[in-house]
Amino acid sequence: MADETLAALRSLMASHSPKLDALVVPSEDYHQSEYVSARDRRREFVSGFTGSAGLALVIANEALLWTDGRYFLQAEQELSKQWKLMRMGEDPAVDIWMADNLPTEAAIGVDPWCISVDTAQKWERAFAKKQQKLIQTTSNLVDQVWTSRPPAEINPVIVHPLEFAGRSVEDKLKDLREKLVQEKALTFAAAFFYVDKRKISSEVSSYMEKNGIEVRDYGVVSSDTALLASDQLASTNSAKETGKTGTTVSDNSVEESRNDLIWVDPGTCCFALYSKLNQDKLFLQSSPLALAKAIKNPVELEGLKNAHIRDGAAVVQYLVWLDNQMQEIYGAAGYFVDGEVNKKDQPRTAKLTEVSVSDKLEGFRASKEHFRGLSFPTISSVGPNGAIIHYCPEAETCAELDPNSMYLFDSGAQYLDGTTDITRTVHFGKPTSHEKACYTAVLKGHIGLGNARFPTGTTGHILDVLARLPLWKYGLDYRHGTGHGIGSYLNVHEGPHQISFRPAARNVALQPSMTVTDEPGYYEDGNFGIRLENVLIVKEGDTQFNFGDRGYLSFEHITWAPYQKKLMDVSLLVPEEIEWLNNYHSKCREILAPHLNASEVEWLKKATEPIRA
Amino acid sequence: MADETLAALRSLMASHSPKLDALVVPSEDYHQSEYVSARDRRREFVSGFTGSAGLALVIANEALLWTDGRYFLQAEQELSKQWKLMRMGEDPAVDIWMADNLPTEAAIGVDPWCISVDTAQKWERAFAKKQQKLIQTTSNLVDQVWTSRPPAEINPVIVHPLEFAGRSVEDKLKDLREKLVQEKALTFAAAFFYVDKRKISSEVSSYMEKNGIEVRDYGVVSSDTALLASDQLASTNSAKETGKTGTTVSDNSVEESRNDLIWVDPGTCCFALYSKLNQDKLFLQSSPLALAKAIKNPVELEGLKNAHIRDGAAVVQYLVWLDNQMQEIYGAAGYFVDGEVNKKDQPRTAKLTEVSVSDKLEGFRASKEHFRGLSFPTISSVGPNGAIIHYCPEAETCAELDPNSMYLFDSGAQYLDGTTDITRTVHFGKPTSHEKACYTAVLKGHIGLGNARFPTGTTGHILDVLARLPLWKYGLDYRHGTGHGIGSYLNVHEGPHQISFRPAARNVALQPSMTVTDEPGYYEDGNFGIRLENVLIVKEGDTQFNFGDRGYLSFEHITWAPYQKKLMDVSLLVPEEIEWLNNYHSKCREILAPHLNASEVEWLKKATEPIRA
Repeated sequence: MADETLAALRSLMASHSPKLDALVVPSEDYHQSEYVSARDRRREFVSGFTGSAGLALVIANEALLWTDGRYFLQAEQELSKQWKLMRMGEDPAVDIWMADNLPTEAAIGVDPWCISVDTAQKWERAFAKKQQKLIQTTSNLVDQVWTSRPPAEINPVIVHPLEFAGRSVEDKLKDLREKLVQEKALTFAAAFFYVDKRKISSEVSSYMEKNGIEVRDYGVVSSDTALLASDQLASTNSAKETGKTGTTVSDNSVEESRNDLIWVDPGTCCFALYSKLNQDKLFLQSSPLALAKAIKNPVELEGLKNAHIRDGAAVVQYLVWLDNQMQEIYGAAGYFVDGEVNKKDQPRTAKLTEVSVSDKLEGFRASKEHFRGLSFPTISSVGPNGAIIHYCPEAETCAELDPNSMYLFDSGAQYLDGTTDITRTVHFGKPTSHEKACYTAVLKGHIGLGNARFPTGTTGHILDVLARLPLWKYGLDYRHGTGHGIGSYLNVHEGPHQISFRPAARNVALQPSMTVTDEPGYYEDGNFGIRLENVLIVKEGDTQFNFGDRGYLSFEHITWAPYQKKLMDVSLLVPEEIEWLNNYHSKCREILAPHLNASEVEWLKKATEPIRA
Repeated sequence: MADETLAALRSLMASHSPKLDALVVPSEDYHQSEYVSARDRRREFVSGFTGSAGLALVIANEALLWTDGRYFLQAEQELSKQWKLMRMGEDPAVDIWMADNLPTEAAIGVDPWCISVDTAQKWERAFAKKQQKLIQTTSNLVDQVWTSRPPAEINPVIVHPLEFAGRSVEDKLKDLREKLVQEKALTFAAAFFYVDKRKISSEVSSYMEKNGIEVRDYGVVSSDTALLASDQLASTNSAKETGKTGTTVSDNSVEESRNDLIWVDPGTCCFALYSKLNQDKLFLQSSPLALAKAIKNPVELEGLKNAHIRDGAAVVQYLVWLDNQMQEIYGAAGYFVDGEVNKKDQPRTAKLTEVSVSDKLEGFRASKEHFRGLSFPTISSVGPNGAIIHYCPEAETCAELDPNSMYLFDSGAQYLDGTTDITRTVHFGKPTSHEKACYTAVLKGHIGLGNARFPTGTTGHILDVLARLPLWKYGLDYRHGTGHGIGSYLNVHEGPHQISFRPAARNVALQPSMTVTDEPGYYEDGNFGIRLENVLIVKEGDTQFNFGDRGYLSFEHITWAPYQKKLMDVSLLVPEEIEWLNNYHSKCREILAPHLNASEVEWLKKATEPIRA
């Protein structure tokens, strides 16, 4: 299959005009999405690699796949012999590789809808040395060879109620237009929403209309962009004002100077649309929407906190259930007891698998108010599978739970009032002292970051080391970032800020009311994986002093679930860490108890008993 | 005076062709030196600000001085009313300020010998928006108005003996030429040394000749560069091979391809010389000499360690002497006793000042083997003067020692076998609990950084936060970097690596056998300053594991002098920190004792007694 696909692609590359020396197949869809629908998994289709991030490169005699450290192990397992794995951070980056390895004046094809302006320009700079050219294919070559391509999914568009969104569409558009005016960018009285109209109910349609948003068919975005470039785009809602105007925003004091720039976010706008615009009329800057989304309003913050309480209750219910089951079915010593399996004589009547237990976890979440679904495919991994950082178990092939192995679960849900994301790692038997030392190092990093205070202006890149330091002490590390923003009933991974060893493309500082995860880990190939993850809100730090009048910030943890004390080597913890853990556990108890039944509360009490040094 | 200078400069700017709207006066000399000779202190002459770093900008109706956080307080005190202080990191950078505030098509003058290629190009990019132009003045306008300009200093050039340098000139030139060949850069059989020939003794002259280095007059570097650009530069040593050749380097396997690029380090080469070269024939990259200097050879490492032992002995002798004097003259409780001044009835017969004690410290150093002078002007500061980060006391105006105040000294020497740089902060009376808390936070940061292990590839920028975190906890910080490289009988501040909250221009990772200082601080304007500084050597980390086969690194402290236990709030230290301190102090004792007399050893024993939690 893979062989045929590659052959078919190579034949299309050869007959393309100009003839292509290479074809790049990115993971992203036309919106640079991280999680893409089945129909858009072109990179997965050509390469067989199922991870969420990566890039395939097809040339005449080779096929290469770049992915990041989260997926090295998984990609090795999934790629066929036709494919060579390129490890990001270790091997040369894809643009450098192409510049170095493809011939002078090579033609390198890509579907310009699937890459951002930033990416395209970076590649073009790398290609310039050898007069190589980035060719925008007029259609997607992969789609042409993908005969079994799934149909488009028609999921209805829904309106997010004001009680959860916190601000009205009108207010949000007003803010946005003010920013456009500030930057002398084009502002219309109209706003356009391009969408497959089959997804729009009459209720949504009238809501849009009421808010001055014109719903247009997804297919016309390309021609509309061309009209915009030639100043001919106008609203079809004849009743409304049309044309450019700064005065819809504020009725006085707006400068009379012409606002005729088009604001394009080079990090998220696709190269295809960008290429249709007049380069002299662009304002290339991060979209003002990115920060508007990242800095949560008070209603969103309140919603996120509430959602995390319900979510934490579900996680505790899951742990209680799993603890019972592990003892029941496998004779495990259990969550609390550091001991060997108690071998039972009778044959097992039931079996737990990575998928069956994650279904159970989903069930606990689904029973909670405002639940709308998972925020990403649950990572539920036993032993060695835990070392596959973004492991995604499948019912037919997944592993059975094992009382002698670490178990890692990383999961979250979409609730109408917020998005959640939590990871805990547990052991129901007798962890080795090595596993405990590693768990404790990860825990120390998790606390070190989550407990930090830092001056305004500090980026997540600066703080990343705090989560790694306790691991580095042993010569250990993890091949992924430490934290990502999280949406409010939106994407589980959300920028523009991040906590990473890599500086962000546009170095956005952490700001009050942003959300960010704190998720260090450690992964030992073939043995186990450990990760601990909470969601944090950036808030004003209550520091004793305020040197330089800069203002100091800190984090508020909003995730509630215990850390397993059995996995801690308490002798490695310092008093400040123990104090933090005891405080956190005591709050867990207080906050979650009202959402649990009596036996669950008993279990939680025991799980959160104070640690003594 | 300052008024007249500014008026004279403005008149020269007006009569310059083209007329200058602004004149930039950088701190640097023609070699981008940090510490410049009296004759080259043009920025100090025009502005009155004496700090080592800064930049003056003169325009028609304003004069502005940019400097960094180390000098905010000092610049405020030194600048006259004609000058406006611009705080780096808080106010707009100078290029941004000029682009925003100077008119369209403004002509901005600078002596191109005093700025680097990097700086010039950065400014030109900023100026492009408004078609402003960077004008290279043909002579230095400041020199024209500086009637009392000091004469050139004629210090003899000396040969650094091989027993301290560790590698011969021949070997070093061979390495350098190999790197040139690798990058297809021009290699000559000849090498040129441009210098004021009055500095060259006949002994040095013959040493140079023996090593194939042609000494040429400093004045011809400009015309020689023009000859180089037109391929006409040749050695006048007729006996030697001349012309380009790759084959002097290795006698076989050198590719026949033409090596005709000229390697220019844009960070250190002045814009004047760069402008004389053919831009198409340049290889713009950090000089290979920077890393060759930064990564010390085994003889240099050994020399540095030895120099630091002698230097540490001098510092301990100084502390013992100062402790006695403070008790003797001022009735201070002393180094060891946390107590009030014991008021004496008799009038004082002697007096200690910041300068008199620093002279004493220099005396202790001068008595050591291989001493050649100080590595920078000693910072010796009492109480509020300690908050002036690069305070430089003068005999007439400096403060008297005070048993009720903190005393900070930051000093170092040049020894033939190495350069030293150490800071300690002490109190001979009764420090406040606030002073202790601040000292302890600085100490925790100092230990946190110095004790870190980190993977190969980590930059100092990544580690910088480790030294700040304990201060941030209280909302405190310091306005300077945390560490700099240090030369081997060379510059006390040496790149290309650094430990700073600012990413380095060219992000050079810390590598084994580099030196770097570890010097966090805290400065409370009007009250006191605290800084602790050791020199560290980067070495292979002896970590238990080696995740990702990257290799892990750590630091070896080579500075030896006790930290004052009286200033520590031990309750704020964690066991790991106490263990580190006790180990360090025990090594101090062992290493320094052979270099001290009996009473000094007694004092040191007491100063380094183990701390108990």
